[in-house]
Amino acid sequence: MEVTIKDVARRCNVAVSTVSRAINNHPDINPQTKAEIMQAIEELNYVPNNSARNLKRSDNKTIAVLVKGISNQFFNKLVTEIEKEIRTKKYTFFLQHVDEHANEVDIAVALTKEKRLRGIVFLGGYEYHTKESLSQLTVPFVTCTTSDFGNNEECVCSSYAVDDYKESYKMTEYLIRQGHKRIVLLGPMEHDESIGRRRLEGYQAALKDNHIDLDEKLIRYMAKNVVTYSMRNGYVVMQEALKEKLDFTAVFAISDLLAIGACKAIFEAGKKIPEDYAVAGFDGIDETFYYEPSITTIRQPIKELATSSMQALFRMIKSKESVPGIIFAGELIERASTNPNL
Amino acid sequence: MEVTIKDVARRCNVAVSTVSRAINNHPDINPQTKAEIMQAIEELNYVPNNSARNLKRSDNKTIAVLVKGISNQFFNKLVTEIEKEIRTKKYTFFLQHVDEHANEVDIAVALTKEKRLRGIVFLGGYEYHTKESLSQLTVPFVTCTTSDFGNNEECVCSSYAVDDYKESYKMTEYLIRQGHKRIVLLGPMEHDESIGRRRLEGYQAALKDNHIDLDEKLIRYMAKNVVTYSMRNGYVVMQEALKEKLDFTAVFAISDLLAIGACKAIFEAGKKIPEDYAVAGFDGIDETFYYEPSITTIRQPIKELATSSMQALFRMIKSKESVPGIIFAGELIERASTNPNL
Repeated sequence: MEVTIKDVARRCNVAVSTVSRAINNHPDINPQTKAEIMQAIEELNYVPNNSARNLKRSDNKTIAVLVKGISNQFFNKLVTEIEKEIRTKKYTFFLQHVDEHANEVDIAVALTKEKRLRGIVFLGGYEYHTKESLSQLTVPFVTCTTSDFGNNEECVCSSYAVDDYKESYKMTEYLIRQGHKRIVLLGPMEHDESIGRRRLEGYQAALKDNHIDLDEKLIRYMAKNVVTYSMRNGYVVMQEALKEKLDFTAVFAISDLLAIGACKAIFEAGKKIPEDYAVAGFDGIDETFYYEPSITTIRQPIKELATSSMQALFRMIKSKESVPGIIFAGELIERASTNPNL
Repeated sequence: MEVTIKDVARRCNVAVSTVSRAINNHPDINPQTKAEIMQAIEELNYVPNNSARNLKRSDNKTIAVLVKGISNQFFNKLVTEIEKEIRTKKYTFFLQHVDEHANEVDIAVALTKEKRLRGIVFLGGYEYHTKESLSQLTVPFVTCTTSDFGNNEECVCSSYAVDDYKESYKMTEYLIRQGHKRIVLLGPMEHDESIGRRRLEGYQAALKDNHIDLDEKLIRYMAKNVVTYSMRNGYVVMQEALKEKLDFTAVFAISDLLAIGACKAIFEAGKKIPEDYAVAGFDGIDETFYYEPSITTIRQPIKELATSSMQALFRMIKSKESVPGIIFAGELIERASTNPNL
């Protein structure tokens, strides 16, 4: 039976927290007590640190997490959750950021050979991949926050994401119900083949179903010379729109960071949110609550995305068979940036 | 001589961007052109992806980056910079988050054995480590953003950080010059032995040198049941202070995220920033600019911290000798959260 910190505490007749202080070299402990605890640890052959213990057992069973594009708060939180799941299952966690213009599948193929991976997690990603390219992926993988290439017969894979079209439709329709007809869509990339495109299509469909003519001028693509999906990108694009004296009453930014940048540009122009312009985002990062005013957003279920995609990956590693993916519902959180009564 | 993407473009008489599109399976390319490019790539024996190529060369030369406590925007940016430096030097980058109550040195010792590390980067960290414990670290290491244990004779090591005492003194004195006498210090931990303690001491010294009596009630420790250094922690601690009707005119939060949380609590209480309460932070994350009002802060030189600490680590890996660390100057950025004229 494994020796736990409780056994050490019992042996020394001290609290578990005291043992923890001794182990972590905390200064706030009686030296005599500490010596006794260290003695007991040795006698009981207790391995003090959970993380240290897990490391020893990992046997080079590595799972790689490939994050496409620059890291942002949303992905960081997701990575932290995924890291936890991977360590709990005694796998080694390997993180690699992939440049937004690089091909993540090529990198995954190289990594698989180099690190003898057991599985791969793709976060983000907006490249089109051919069947030939995907068929080179010889280990199970999941795509998380995107369904772009997580559903295909060539591979052992699965896909976990919200329905970007539907969630975007939901937010656009909400803004229309709030009385807006001229809604800026901020943030798809030109020639976007992934998330941005689906969010654009959801926006277009909601306008159409509500008999509002689409004005192409209201679609504001991300700036190309600025980090994608960043606060700065939302800021410069909105500055440009305001300078042009674009006629609009609401902004739907396809990421929260873009929304925050847009808010700052609006404030700098001496305008009020939501009185002059309503602003909504997408993702549900904590910053949207702490911003003033708090920003309306679509919350993606980060914890569920992480847990279910990793469970699927572990299952696929065992069974070598694809499992069905899951489309999650996002949650529209209405806040003061679109509703002056909140 | 190495074949580059330019050679491929020249051979096919197309633009480099076209070759890139072919490599990355971009749909927006003529299939015939793509076939020609792929043919040329094979003939020239061009290895298309930089990252993929680097991976193959890494030979398991691993550097581990241990991040203490929960990830936040400041550390994330630093990790991204450090990751870049590590990959440029063809080392393998290994990231591990360390629970804030765990002992990072024990984990590093275990990792060194498990992964046959060449070097270690410690980010953050606020535990006291004995000489005995440190002497177990048999590979060179740097501490970054903290000088806690990066200067000792037992190890090959070096330390890169700002002078927390001095920078905190600077900010406190700035607030005093702005006319504030009752300044809340938000965020040290009780029994803090690291960054928080030095920032507290800088605050105390600035008050003393300006003949302002220290009021212990103005020191607001982080909440223990909430993630440290988080927006939420600043938010709940400031809510509590406002509920108590604490008498103060300014808040100096020892991290930007704490400052943002404090701002939200102040707004929710119906108060204005900076008219009712001035607020300042520490770290210089981008969010402080985009917040409304923009938040005064001390900018830590992230890029320089990353570059110089990694250069030192690479040197120490070669020479097996410690190199002198560097104390960097922070930059006080004055913004509207403490100056209504900005």
